[in-house]
Amino acid sequence: MTALKIFSDSHLTGTASSLLHDGASPHEIIVPKTRPASILSKPEPDPSFALADIAFGQPDVESIRNSEKLKWLHVSTAGFTRYDTPEFRMLAAERGLIVTNSSSVYSAPCAEHVFAFMLAQSRFLPAALQSQAANGDAEWLGLRGGSTSLRGQSVVILGFGAIALELVKLLAPFEMKITAMRRTPRGDEGFPTVTPEQLPSALATADHVINILPENTASLKYINTARFAEMKSGAVFHNIGRGTTVDQDDLLAALRSGHLAAAWLDVTDPEPLPAGHPLRLEPNCHITPHIAGGHGDETLTLVKHFLGNLRRYLDGTPLLDRVM
Amino acid sequence: MTALKIFSDSHLTGTASSLLHDGASPHEIIVPKTRPASILSKPEPDPSFALADIAFGQPDVESIRNSEKLKWLHVSTAGFTRYDTPEFRMLAAERGLIVTNSSSVYSAPCAEHVFAFMLAQSRFLPAALQSQAANGDAEWLGLRGGSTSLRGQSVVILGFGAIALELVKLLAPFEMKITAMRRTPRGDEGFPTVTPEQLPSALATADHVINILPENTASLKYINTARFAEMKSGAVFHNIGRGTTVDQDDLLAALRSGHLAAAWLDVTDPEPLPAGHPLRLEPNCHITPHIAGGHGDETLTLVKHFLGNLRRYLDGTPLLDRVM
Repeated sequence: MTALKIFSDSHLTGTASSLLHDGASPHEIIVPKTRPASILSKPEPDPSFALADIAFGQPDVESIRNSEKLKWLHVSTAGFTRYDTPEFRMLAAERGLIVTNSSSVYSAPCAEHVFAFMLAQSRFLPAALQSQAANGDAEWLGLRGGSTSLRGQSVVILGFGAIALELVKLLAPFEMKITAMRRTPRGDEGFPTVTPEQLPSALATADHVINILPENTASLKYINTARFAEMKSGAVFHNIGRGTTVDQDDLLAALRSGHLAAAWLDVTDPEPLPAGHPLRLEPNCHITPHIAGGHGDETLTLVKHFLGNLRRYLDGTPLLDRVM
Repeated sequence: MTALKIFSDSHLTGTASSLLHDGASPHEIIVPKTRPASILSKPEPDPSFALADIAFGQPDVESIRNSEKLKWLHVSTAGFTRYDTPEFRMLAAERGLIVTNSSSVYSAPCAEHVFAFMLAQSRFLPAALQSQAANGDAEWLGLRGGSTSLRGQSVVILGFGAIALELVKLLAPFEMKITAMRRTPRGDEGFPTVTPEQLPSALATADHVINILPENTASLKYINTARFAEMKSGAVFHNIGRGTTVDQDDLLAALRSGHLAAAWLDVTDPEPLPAGHPLRLEPNCHITPHIAGGHGDETLTLVKHFLGNLRRYLDGTPLLDRVM
């Protein structure tokens, strides 16, 4: 067997890096001279990329286009905005380039994160954790009477994929009415799924609207005044997809008018939002700094997932989380 | 059928009060001249109590002792500390007094509240909601790497009852290792249950320890330095039972030493804790003001539950949530 060259530009912990080298052996790991500051920033092209048969990480599109050897790109995130363009898809199709992502690694913690948002909202945690109210006083009655049970409430999930499937599993004991929006429903989702055209009637009765949309030309500012108007008064909006899929001015207006009861955002545009951004000052807007996918040493889970796919690649069996 | 007299000292909303009167008719609802300021404060005896066949609320023990007519007391909370004494139990046994509580009304929201605590902790919400960290910086790496998944973690529940059973249902999709402590395990609990003597070995591996103990002579300060020492380093302690079951000085010490990663308390002693109380100033101690059982118009749910039991009482079928 010829030793393959695997380009890896991921920031890995020592343990994860050792596992990658040991687990991939006898295949060779090559690393760039400089790594991008963050997984979301634009990487610099690295001359060693031209030697790679496989890439694991977030290499720049130009290097992929110039490569004559690359056969498989394994993206180290669930999102793959950089590669999700008609041009790149065409390039991948022409070259027979396989593209997989790491959505399995992030689906469980992402689903738990938005579930934490839903429960924190229904149990009024942001206000309750600040309160020193005494049993029976007006503030206490407001907190106690305002908090609710998720049981029997309605949820609309925008975007059907690994996270949605995981979330539906977690919500099962709450007997909620769950509807997902999918570009093309197939009927095998296991719960009601609607097209974008059918979305308004689903939004009209949703207590929680959960946005997991990836960023692409169709999803930019997809959540805007028109969408918020379709939601019922008192709905709660959650975003763990991409910040750019929401018109943030429209979101602010929907919160300020009281039409939305609250917004819970793990993603914004830009990230982080500037300190004085009006969404930061809005009392019912709750923001976490894009950590939904985190789960302890996630680079270790990423490497394990990549190595599992590497075994499949070498065995010629279908890869997990293939996106192109 | 003779019309019965039902004493009700509960604070009910207009809707709930109407439902009580209509639903109980032709039986008569009698209300005291003054009602206690809160369900936890000591009520004043009311002369009309002597006429009551049934009591729904939190009547004072002295009035019950003096009553010659009372056949059934339906306590309007899940806790019934006031009545949970050997003297009262003897009185109830001698008189043939039936005592029921409202635990079914509160078990679902209480279970959701502590579940919200668990997820808020595992997703680091208190710190993450305050953070404006940028992707890749040290604070961000700490939040993202510190947050975990509940999946596969261990839970010990102190106190086996309606809330524990409800919580176990909600946690099912997370495939956690769940153990409950019960005074006398019967083997029909559906998951591992240990005696108080077997508790230390269960505590030693628990990621989350959930206290649902009611207050009685055996449970006062049951959670103390000895119990915390039995817990593993990094455990998270939750209390939705009664504040008096915890030695708060010992809890403070366990938090300050870093032995406990965090505490989440819906109950304290006293309630509310004074503004300057050291537990309020402890960064990893998160306190909500005894709202775990809240769920919108809970007085309506309480009345529905009481009326369901009234129908059973009149039909001579076994009552729900009977405690004596």
